[in-house]
Amino acid sequence: MKAKPLGPIPAGYDVKDGELAIGGMTARALVAKAGRTPVFVYSREHLTQRAADLRAALPANIHLNYAIKANPFAPLLQHMAQLVDGFDIASAGELVMAQDAGLDPEQISFAGPGKRDAELEAAIAAGVTLNLESENEAQRALAIGARLGIAPRLAIRVNPDFELRGSGMKMGGGAKPFGIDQHRVPALARQILASDAQWCGLHIFTGSQALGAEALIEAQGNVLDLADQLSDQIGAPLPKLNMGGGFGIPYFHGDEPVDTRAIGAALQTRMDALPANLADTYFCIELGRHLVGEAGVYLAEIIDRKESHGVVYLVTDGGLHHQLAASGNFGTVVRRNYPSAIATRFDAEPEEIANIVGCLCTPLDRLADNGAFPRADVGDLVAVFCAGAYGATSSPANFLGHGPAAEILV
Amino acid sequence: MKAKPLGPIPAGYDVKDGELAIGGMTARALVAKAGRTPVFVYSREHLTQRAADLRAALPANIHLNYAIKANPFAPLLQHMAQLVDGFDIASAGELVMAQDAGLDPEQISFAGPGKRDAELEAAIAAGVTLNLESENEAQRALAIGARLGIAPRLAIRVNPDFELRGSGMKMGGGAKPFGIDQHRVPALARQILASDAQWCGLHIFTGSQALGAEALIEAQGNVLDLADQLSDQIGAPLPKLNMGGGFGIPYFHGDEPVDTRAIGAALQTRMDALPANLADTYFCIELGRHLVGEAGVYLAEIIDRKESHGVVYLVTDGGLHHQLAASGNFGTVVRRNYPSAIATRFDAEPEEIANIVGCLCTPLDRLADNGAFPRADVGDLVAVFCAGAYGATSSPANFLGHGPAAEILV
Repeated sequence: MKAKPLGPIPAGYDVKDGELAIGGMTARALVAKAGRTPVFVYSREHLTQRAADLRAALPANIHLNYAIKANPFAPLLQHMAQLVDGFDIASAGELVMAQDAGLDPEQISFAGPGKRDAELEAAIAAGVTLNLESENEAQRALAIGARLGIAPRLAIRVNPDFELRGSGMKMGGGAKPFGIDQHRVPALARQILASDAQWCGLHIFTGSQALGAEALIEAQGNVLDLADQLSDQIGAPLPKLNMGGGFGIPYFHGDEPVDTRAIGAALQTRMDALPANLADTYFCIELGRHLVGEAGVYLAEIIDRKESHGVVYLVTDGGLHHQLAASGNFGTVVRRNYPSAIATRFDAEPEEIANIVGCLCTPLDRLADNGAFPRADVGDLVAVFCAGAYGATSSPANFLGHGPAAEILV
Repeated sequence: MKAKPLGPIPAGYDVKDGELAIGGMTARALVAKAGRTPVFVYSREHLTQRAADLRAALPANIHLNYAIKANPFAPLLQHMAQLVDGFDIASAGELVMAQDAGLDPEQISFAGPGKRDAELEAAIAAGVTLNLESENEAQRALAIGARLGIAPRLAIRVNPDFELRGSGMKMGGGAKPFGIDQHRVPALARQILASDAQWCGLHIFTGSQALGAEALIEAQGNVLDLADQLSDQIGAPLPKLNMGGGFGIPYFHGDEPVDTRAIGAALQTRMDALPANLADTYFCIELGRHLVGEAGVYLAEIIDRKESHGVVYLVTDGGLHHQLAASGNFGTVVRRNYPSAIATRFDAEPEEIANIVGCLCTPLDRLADNGAFPRADVGDLVAVFCAGAYGATSSPANFLGHGPAAEILV
């Protein structure tokens, strides 16, 4: 049998005593610290370095927001609060998390296509910025603001006519449930400007999980052009522009990291020649996965090593109830392997082809298909990388009654 | 735009005052009872009827087990405990749930490829039957039994060489992480028979979510043949045979219900001519989805009605965080529509083509694509059917911070 390639292990993961080490601790020490397996381990150092790299690459006037849906683990949010300029939230539940992490309301913006009245009220009362998804939502927000006697902070989420090429999730280009079609934006913006609300500009999100710098540069250029054009039509300079995100991370064999320096350079060129409408604009980009995804590793213990018809299965105590995306079952058409390794034999050469599976009683529960690994046995630890984003909270933790994984920040 | 067909609404759902009614209560009354939306509503009547239909269709000596992974909602388990002969569990967490539902240990069997020592110990101490997934697991169970001074109840889960044709999930035929390849079963069974353990026979699970009676009849015949053959090789009659399940439910346009009467008749023919090895065998089948899937309906409220490029979106307060499978993102290659309806206009004719989406900020969050529905507006309720199995606990309830749906049994 031919091995199926594994995704690339992110930079920054070391070997210590033959084991994968994170923050200077071996895999076994990390498990001891967590008290159990499976565990998500998030690296402070990795988070800090990634944010610093982005700051260095991007123009100085581009503020950096963290979309907390990617990973809302409370200690991680506390850490991220020190690294970024704001949080993007997507529910009233996330509003509580962002406030608990110590952010000021002005640092928080709230997007999401189905905001309930209770969520709008909580957000307006807290003073966070609403990225409006429809005219209906705008009217509800204005009415709630009037009832509360608070001027709501209102931005408009634009559904642009263009998309982010090569993105894993397209959020623009054609009919979408997100935002307001670009041609209807000026009328609503003028209504907000004429109201008691505080006009907070535009949110233009074109897609996510893109790796190609050229496509990201093109999308950012289109966003700036559209923001200028909409400001003209609105008839007022733009106070704020959330340019969206879209920077992905390499998950699969052949994926290359985003060239953030090239993107930053192209963006600097644009910032050096801003049109009048955008001369005093507060710019930000919002990133989730790119900020935290590679900073997380999922560790599970091998409970059984078995063979069936000559195929080796390493059965772990983890699985898709914690790692739905890695199992290939979350919006994936063709299953590919995430980066993974035998954490307790991290410096050993591959010796066999094995399947790493979870403990759930379903054939969907696979963590690595036919990967080339050193020979592992019961008691060894398996690592699945790129587990920092869309892992713990994006997976059905209650499925089959095993419950959630542990999470630690080291 | 041409409408994309919706799946077939299961029998047993009525109209009352123009609304979908379950257990005599309208959709709005059910939401009032639950106190909020979204809510999973499970029908006692539907559950009772389904179990009665199965009892009537199947031979009298075929016992009926419920695989609680399909839906472990505590009130539903209490109800199911009255309807079936046993529960199948897949974790120590489910062991607690089964015991809380009042089942005797002899009524509980535990399958799952990655049972930890602590799980084996809990199961042996409780006196439930273990369906062994590997020789290694057998040795661990025997050692734990010896240490506890308890004779463990041990059955062997067989990985059969054949599969259930047409099943949504194949659990046999070739290399699998489940069970023990059939040719290795006799040696292990003889070891168990020679030990202090209690020999509890075989578990042969060939697949799930099959709709074709012919394929199910063929698989059951193969299971009985294999059980007889393995008993010969073991050299002892078989005390118990869990024949697995596999009966599906219709989710999609064109799906037809399983013809359980045809299956029952074929099985009766086999039961009337059992070989000596199986003459005194306790037979059971284990079903999850087929018992509970059609008894559940997911109700969500429409928060926004919006148009984008001429396409209508009904944005609900529900979504894939409760209904991952219905969104088409749980092991699905091509997204098809589950049965769905406007619950508050249940007797109205279709008037428009609309998309029902969830409140999550991701394009994956779709509940119905281009369905033909009566015109619905903000405040209307949407129903997604076939929500009784692999719904609430199979979905990432914490994704984006909205939290779990309500659940009620009526």
